[in-house]
Amino acid sequence: MSSEAAQTASPHVRRKRARRRREILHAALATVRDRGYHATTLDDIAERLGIRKASLYHYFADKDAILYACHKESLAELDRMIEFSETCCPTPRDRLAYLIREHVRVMTEELEGSPLAFEVSALSPDRRAEIVAGRDRYEAVLRDLVALGAERGELRPVDPKLAVFGILGAINWIARWYDPEGGTDGAALGDAFADLLIKGLEST
Amino acid sequence: MSSEAAQTASPHVRRKRARRRREILHAALATVRDRGYHATTLDDIAERLGIRKASLYHYFADKDAILYACHKESLAELDRMIEFSETCCPTPRDRLAYLIREHVRVMTEELEGSPLAFEVSALSPDRRAEIVAGRDRYEAVLRDLVALGAERGELRPVDPKLAVFGILGAINWIARWYDPEGGTDGAALGDAFADLLIKGLEST
Repeated sequence: MSSEAAQTASPHVRRKRARRRREILHAALATVRDRGYHATTLDDIAERLGIRKASLYHYFADKDAILYACHKESLAELDRMIEFSETCCPTPRDRLAYLIREHVRVMTEELEGSPLAFEVSALSPDRRAEIVAGRDRYEAVLRDLVALGAERGELRPVDPKLAVFGILGAINWIARWYDPEGGTDGAALGDAFADLLIKGLEST
Repeated sequence: MSSEAAQTASPHVRRKRARRRREILHAALATVRDRGYHATTLDDIAERLGIRKASLYHYFADKDAILYACHKESLAELDRMIEFSETCCPTPRDRLAYLIREHVRVMTEELEGSPLAFEVSALSPDRRAEIVAGRDRYEAVLRDLVALGAERGELRPVDPKLAVFGILGAINWIARWYDPEGGTDGAALGDAFADLLIKGLEST
């Protein structure tokens, strides 16, 4: 279906397509988590969904397009979190704790223990540049919070760049050990990580 | 050269071979860091060393054998660190801080900002099992130190498994942002990470 056709479709058809599109992205993330990006084929993704590969082409041109869409969804989630953190949390420390907690929860509960952070280099150069720029913006928000927290005396005066690399490393690594079937609650995991990581930054 | 021939070679020849072997491993790690394991070829590694690919075959049968040797060297370093930590550091907290500091330093200064932690799945099944078992032993040592530190009241009572996943994630992620040409001193980086990560565990 062309994008023009998609736009003129009935609301019911559009909702159905949006739902199927999300199912494909989830199946892709789960397959990449299990076998790695390079070993994942469109056949694997179609098989997980119980559909024919030809059906996938109605939604995505190739594996790169699926990976790109997963990254875009993930960045949109991070943007929503950043926006909400401005209203929910009064202090830099609390905003940082909220973002760590939510990042972990979204990654484990909504993005299949997302292995996305490991797969940036597989994207085509243009798409990679766009996704890396999005991640850089997120990192800059975190660094500003660490610096502002130190200015206000809530947090220790550490190198914000190193502190944020440490935080993101701890979070991204979850994709390597998290088992979605293992019964660990994503929200509880988020709480535990926010506690461990923020505690290392607090002034005492 | 067969391994039998290698054993009967003169000390001078053996030293020369050992040196060249290490050079190949370093060139392989640097190439994998720059282009990723899957995109790295034996030609790339030979080119970085300024030798012919045929010369590599005197040392390693294929790319998998080089990756395996890199992992073995890395595990041997971790074993040496564990052993030394028993003599250098009186308390669980100090041993843990030493291991974090040294892990970061060895990874950045001696293993080319090692991307090894990301490349376990590329190994053949037997070798993968052996390397994963080695990493599991290292993780168990770190978990025991976290638990023992809590027992003695030096550290907070946290889930040792989650705490160690957080620590190793922060450390392993260094391979994704560390620039060996960037002038950051590996020992200073190790100090900064030990400070951040241990602080999050200390009882106050």
